[in-house]
Amino acid sequence: MEIPTTSSRIITLLTDFGTEDYFVGAIKGVILTRSPKSVLVDITHAIPPQNVQAAAFTLSAAYPYFPAGSIHLAIVDPGVGSDRRPILIEAAPHLFVGPDNGLFTLVLEQVPTARIRHLTNTAYFLPNPSLTFHGRDIFAPVAAALAEGVSPADLGPTIQDFVRFETMQCKSAEDGSLVGSIMHIDHFGNCVTNLLWDKLLALSATKSFRLQVKEFQIRTLARYYSEASVRPGEPFLICGSAGFLEISVQSSSAARALNIKVGDPIMVIWEGGAAQNSGVAPAWQL
Amino acid sequence: MEIPTTSSRIITLLTDFGTEDYFVGAIKGVILTRSPKSVLVDITHAIPPQNVQAAAFTLSAAYPYFPAGSIHLAIVDPGVGSDRRPILIEAAPHLFVGPDNGLFTLVLEQVPTARIRHLTNTAYFLPNPSLTFHGRDIFAPVAAALAEGVSPADLGPTIQDFVRFETMQCKSAEDGSLVGSIMHIDHFGNCVTNLLWDKLLALSATKSFRLQVKEFQIRTLARYYSEASVRPGEPFLICGSAGFLEISVQSSSAARALNIKVGDPIMVIWEGGAAQNSGVAPAWQL
Amino acid sequence: MEIPTTSSRIITLLTDFGTEDYFVGAIKGVILTRSPKSVLVDITHAIPPQNVQAAAFTLSAAYPYFPAGSIHLAIVDPGVGSDRRPILIEAAPHLFVGPDNGLFTLVLEQVPTARIRHLTNTAYFLPNPSLTFHGRDIFAPVAAALAEGVSPADLGPTIQDFVRFETMQCKSAEDGSLVGSIMHIDHFGNCVTNLLWDKLLALSATKSFRLQVKEFQIRTLARYYSEASVRPGEPFLICGSAGFLEISVQSSSAARALNIKVGDPIMVIWEGGAAQNSGVAPAWQL
Repeated sequence: MEIPTTSSRIITLLTDFGTEDYFVGAIKGVILTRSPKSVLVDITHAIPPQNVQAAAFTLSAAYPYFPAGSIHLAIVDPGVGSDRRPILIEAAPHLFVGPDNGLFTLVLEQVPTARIRHLTNTAYFLPNPSLTFHGRDIFAPVAAALAEGVSPADLGPTIQDFVRFETMQCKSAEDGSLVGSIMHIDHFGNCVTNLLWDKLLALSATKSFRLQVKEFQIRTLARYYSEASVRPGEPFLICGSAGFLEISVQSSSAARALNIKVGDPIMVIWEGGAAQNSGVAPAWQL
Repeated sequence: MEIPTTSSRIITLLTDFGTEDYFVGAIKGVILTRSPKSVLVDITHAIPPQNVQAAAFTLSAAYPYFPAGSIHLAIVDPGVGSDRRPILIEAAPHLFVGPDNGLFTLVLEQVPTARIRHLTNTAYFLPNPSLTFHGRDIFAPVAAALAEGVSPADLGPTIQDFVRFETMQCKSAEDGSLVGSIMHIDHFGNCVTNLLWDKLLALSATKSFRLQVKEFQIRTLARYYSEASVRPGEPFLICGSAGFLEISVQSSSAARALNIKVGDPIMVIWEGGAAQNSGVAPAWQL
Repeated sequence: MEIPTTSSRIITLLTDFGTEDYFVGAIKGVILTRSPKSVLVDITHAIPPQNVQAAAFTLSAAYPYFPAGSIHLAIVDPGVGSDRRPILIEAAPHLFVGPDNGLFTLVLEQVPTARIRHLTNTAYFLPNPSLTFHGRDIFAPVAAALAEGVSPADLGPTIQDFVRFETMQCKSAEDGSLVGSIMHIDHFGNCVTNLLWDKLLALSATKSFRLQVKEFQIRTLARYYSEASVRPGEPFLICGSAGFLEISVQSSSAARALNIKVGDPIMVIWEGGAAQNSGVAPAWQL
């Protein structure tokens, strides 16, 4: 793995710490004390508390846009202080630091060649780390060490038996329909499903479909949010910016309008005839 | 227009994206990939969703405090993916990048000599830009290009027919009273009107007035929030830091206390006698 | 006091401004205009409005993790524009800038040798400072001046009669019990008491105790949040990362579960026998 050795390395932060406490400040202080030229970038600190799966999704959507050599500090860590391991992921050209609790499941799926290390070298921790704030006492100083050029191999041995959660990918049912769920609801109330748009596009080339979520049947597809053909208040399907099928309502929150919550099931049901959308397909094929 | 060519350029960010999603992180990653030495500064990501006018106000209040040569990325963009144009504003010594939907109305009022360009040079976009996230795919890489010294003229041609909204300036009624509205409610619940303090000061030099908002008549003026002469719970008028008349309540939210919302009308009514406040005028004249 | 003269100085920001207005952006713009190489780090902008004591706690927990020479801008300032003084604290190796209203009480307790200066040299303020936003007009440019190497002595004379609030430390009652209160509730709902863990540890070496808060008696101690011996929903005591005794509930908010609010009284009551926890004491002694 080639890590650029520049004078300043980017360290991103993704946590469930919120921004009202001293937590994020302390982590940044530790990093800047040990790696003064690091450039700190917040991805978010608003992961729902202890929601490892939500963190995994947000991390996997954000990190690919950062430069090679970036170090991603991701801390949603309900098991802090227990025997859950602190780990480092070498997923060239990115590095990840955080707890071994499944948070890096999607990264590891995207980069199957990634190497995982158990952070055992306490020389790079703060002295006397607490059992309640490894973000400050272990993960931050390790990220700073990496930014200063410490080799991953110095931080601990590789491991194979890391924790993954079963990723919630959309599955095919016996009758051919696709069964999935709502993976995320964004700030605007768009409901992100776990169905990859490209997969839907391939499957729907020759047949039309409707999406069922709760009591709603949605057939309208839009290319962009303000598309004129959509009626006010009507839910529609769209290719979201992270590459998944989303459910939206114009100028409003689809989650609130349809009372959708994370985890709600969705189903893509193929319809009798040929693709009703085939005529307009080129329009909503990005 | 003289743009300083330093080794690091400031890029500010103002959006309605919130901070809980991957959106802001992706934008910052794109910028830092293409312009590693840029200094990123968040103005806010908490513009009410799709509220272009609120964004215009906050942007116009913040940007003048940034150094010459700063690049201001402002993205409140309900029309993303439609035929609304991506634009660049050259308002020396500042640059602005965002959608052509009125977001820069106040900037263009403040800098009548500004030049507007339609961003047409796709060479500076991400490849295959999405129709749902131009912040990441168009505006961020264009801002990075500007930070790296690309000339505005390389980004697209100038245009004249850009979108402005009608600014809500306080107007004089037939009877001489001033009719305006609440433009913004801040974090503390102070209610910012669209009446410029300097204008009020000039008009009120020789006559006293009261401000009417909803069922309330407010005559008390204060120079600062904790002024002792104000009674607890009493609403008062004050010159806010952005230069507009504000309605406040001590140690509390005026918006909540008086049930004021953005858009509520206000009226300045001139009273019979000479300025009742003339004696104390020097005290609240900044 | 030795202040490192590096090319870039860290300036931290802690305010009650929220992040939805132009306030924080304007402050950052002023600093970067006058000190382009400063590195700005947000501690938090979510101090409850005008809550000086909450700001004092969060500041004192965060600042020690920043490098020597850091400048901490702390602005919770209900008295802005009145005769409350703007001050500078030289608490080697850190500098603090903000209003003289008790905000630095805990810093001054932690660094008894600190020197306090009244910021009187208007040459370092913005021209014509407002009476409503000293963060932008006085504190930000003063912090920038310090970052650029201006000597504290140039900014104003030392003073002795600064404002402190009475710190809410846990006290011993006549019967030997400890009487304190809830000082802070964090993002996860952990309830931080004002009882230093080390003090409790020393006192409880030979006797067992229970903590009373509202109608609850809590005896369970945990070393870390996910400790298996804790029953679901059971409140327990833990050494928080800031060094104080905290009340927690696993995977949930203790504040919500027990309806605890900041300021609620707590009492540590010593029990008849020897320490019931003595056997496991080494386990929860960090």
